[in-house]
Amino acid sequence: MTHTAEILSVGTELLLGNIANTDAQDVSVALSELGIDVRWHTVVGDNPERVKQAVAVARTRADILIATGGLGPTYDDLTKKTLAEAFGKKLVFHEPSARKIRELYFQRLKTEELPDHALLQAWLPEGCTVFENSCGTAPGCGFEAGGMHVLMLPGPPSECRAMLRTGAVPYLKSLSDSVLVSRNFRIFGIGESSCEQLLRDVMESSENPTLAPYAKEGEVLLRLTAKAGSEEEAGAMMAPLENHVREILGDLIYGVDVDSLEQVVSGLLKERGQTLASAESCTGGLIAKRMTDLPGSSAVFLGGAVTYSTPSKHRVLGVDETLLREKGAVSPETAAAMAEGARALYGADYALSTTGVAGPDSDERGNPVGLVYVALASGRGTVVREFRCGSVRARCRSIAVNHALDMLRRELLGLSQPE
Amino acid sequence: MTHTAEILSVGTELLLGNIANTDAQDVSVALSELGIDVRWHTVVGDNPERVKQAVAVARTRADILIATGGLGPTYDDLTKKTLAEAFGKKLVFHEPSARKIRELYFQRLKTEELPDHALLQAWLPEGCTVFENSCGTAPGCGFEAGGMHVLMLPGPPSECRAMLRTGAVPYLKSLSDSVLVSRNFRIFGIGESSCEQLLRDVMESSENPTLAPYAKEGEVLLRLTAKAGSEEEAGAMMAPLENHVREILGDLIYGVDVDSLEQVVSGLLKERGQTLASAESCTGGLIAKRMTDLPGSSAVFLGGAVTYSTPSKHRVLGVDETLLREKGAVSPETAAAMAEGARALYGADYALSTTGVAGPDSDERGNPVGLVYVALASGRGTVVREFRCGSVRARCRSIAVNHALDMLRRELLGLSQPE
Repeated sequence: MTHTAEILSVGTELLLGNIANTDAQDVSVALSELGIDVRWHTVVGDNPERVKQAVAVARTRADILIATGGLGPTYDDLTKKTLAEAFGKKLVFHEPSARKIRELYFQRLKTEELPDHALLQAWLPEGCTVFENSCGTAPGCGFEAGGMHVLMLPGPPSECRAMLRTGAVPYLKSLSDSVLVSRNFRIFGIGESSCEQLLRDVMESSENPTLAPYAKEGEVLLRLTAKAGSEEEAGAMMAPLENHVREILGDLIYGVDVDSLEQVVSGLLKERGQTLASAESCTGGLIAKRMTDLPGSSAVFLGGAVTYSTPSKHRVLGVDETLLREKGAVSPETAAAMAEGARALYGADYALSTTGVAGPDSDERGNPVGLVYVALASGRGTVVREFRCGSVRARCRSIAVNHALDMLRRELLGLSQPE
Repeated sequence: MTHTAEILSVGTELLLGNIANTDAQDVSVALSELGIDVRWHTVVGDNPERVKQAVAVARTRADILIATGGLGPTYDDLTKKTLAEAFGKKLVFHEPSARKIRELYFQRLKTEELPDHALLQAWLPEGCTVFENSCGTAPGCGFEAGGMHVLMLPGPPSECRAMLRTGAVPYLKSLSDSVLVSRNFRIFGIGESSCEQLLRDVMESSENPTLAPYAKEGEVLLRLTAKAGSEEEAGAMMAPLENHVREILGDLIYGVDVDSLEQVVSGLLKERGQTLASAESCTGGLIAKRMTDLPGSSAVFLGGAVTYSTPSKHRVLGVDETLLREKGAVSPETAAAMAEGARALYGADYALSTTGVAGPDSDERGNPVGLVYVALASGRGTVVREFRCGSVRARCRSIAVNHALDMLRRELLGLSQPE
């Protein structure tokens, strides 16, 4: 049987536009991966009458209802009570959840007494499967009632995401009779439309498996998906198309089913027992931030110098003052000297540097917004490349970091650098 | 008369989770500012039957319907046709839009002939107000039918945002007889539920203006909102409550209608002509990244050293090796030495440092996950504080940076540091 799902997000902050509904996005991704057809998203405010109305509508058109938000301890957190009522379920006190809540407040948050309504969170629909909250206080749950599967997840995105993985997905897996298996090709160095042009034939002709490109911040995600009775069967169905994609895109594919360029680069360095340092101007710490986002990154990433001001490029990295004066902070020569300075300072095998104009304005030498030099220093010398990273500040910084990490990936794999 | 609105976003990519529904967010913000009550968001796929179903539901509960997406020239762009049918409107050919479309394709996109369905975009509901698209090809529109105001905006976020401003807002302004004005108090150092406990009386008793807290990553947003005939009137209505909030929360409020702690800190430094540097271990560049996210930050932020490995704390920041060996990398002494080292290295007025255990595992000395020392070095000496930042890596890092920036804010304003 095929399931159809509706996601019901509860929160006035969504209707006011304070935040985007990323919970619905995260839940949609997870459900699609399970082969569950998401047909509707509904957002409603913290108002019990309207939540009930939304539930009544959802019952006419879906058999899985995933509610997000409104599970917390404050007076506007009404999802659990309202949905339990709508589905004729009593709320019962769940002692293990209460214990976890007390523990969290007393031991980790060091509060002296429990806030008034904290334990309201431990009241859950009778007979439900409880989903533990690994990142917050409010547990979630899943139950079946009136021919519908109802799941409740917390609103804060990090809590929602974690509980999706540990609670909701296992719960939903048992409801689905087919699996949807995907391979996600991560591609850097080519745009979405060029990628589509290269693969148009197979994209248009294949229905199962399907092949579809998605533009991501400065890169492309190409997703190959097969629906089948088992993972093995899906794998076999995908194999010919997978080979075709690899043949066409070659080393533009930086990984399959990986999270990011930094994850790939970090893995390669770990395998080789080598280390990295960074020297950042226009990217302002984003290389370091992204490398250290990865748990366990201390084995490969020694650190980095953010030298945002021109004097600090000399003071911290030892970039020659004459060079800075003559060539300017945004120049291939400065990029090279920064990378070499960081490599020596940290004693690393490799160092990446960035210097450029992230905007909104061009620099005092008239360098245009979006111009970034990236250098990679290693025992084999230093290479510098010039990139245009676009005129939107945040995007420019993020694309510059992608270029830097991809340069290192290519160096580590012995591939040629982009022109 | 008060209007209630529903936003209907059309696009299978939303239901697959490929993108978040930022159009609904943008429209919500714009409508809230006009005093129009947004009661529902609905998302539906590129399926005419279900779009019609969604319209039928919306007609029972709103008198303004804003549709986003599905106005383009491809076969799955069905919003205009479907909504026109649902409201009994004929589509008529709009020559000025057709002219603009031709112009765009031939002159700006340099195509040699018009793509097959390009001119479909110029067919619009009879008698509608046409909204020009300044960033793309598909025009939008607004019309009244069956007691409902129906507006259609394009899906690509930049087009939607631009047309909101130039087309939809002017159209809607004439329908609204009140404005909604908000003050956003940004609060750090107290949780959402404690904040609510302190202000419960006024939160529960006041209907206009309203006061509501929202948890944000490691901080609280408290929003005071009044609905009135004019901005002045709203301001006067809010004043007593605003004073009350300031009295109760005092210096826990780091700003009103500001974006972030880093924005406040950067502003204070700019006013004083002072500079900041950072020395980061567990936060791995996030202080630097957040400071340099702000355009123009080079005036106050000189740079920062990310010293992720223990040896780099000595090599780059000159932290004493004996101290590192005896006290460990995660210690108040190391935090202080790091901040002092960065201050000297960059020649800054202030330096912030972080060292701690971001997880997922405790460190080799048994320091627990979430323990972070933050130090602030200045001409007046160095202060160090110990914080517990939670056990989720990304959140721990982000909260640690908030603590660091708040310490600097307090120092700059001459406020006491938290215990």
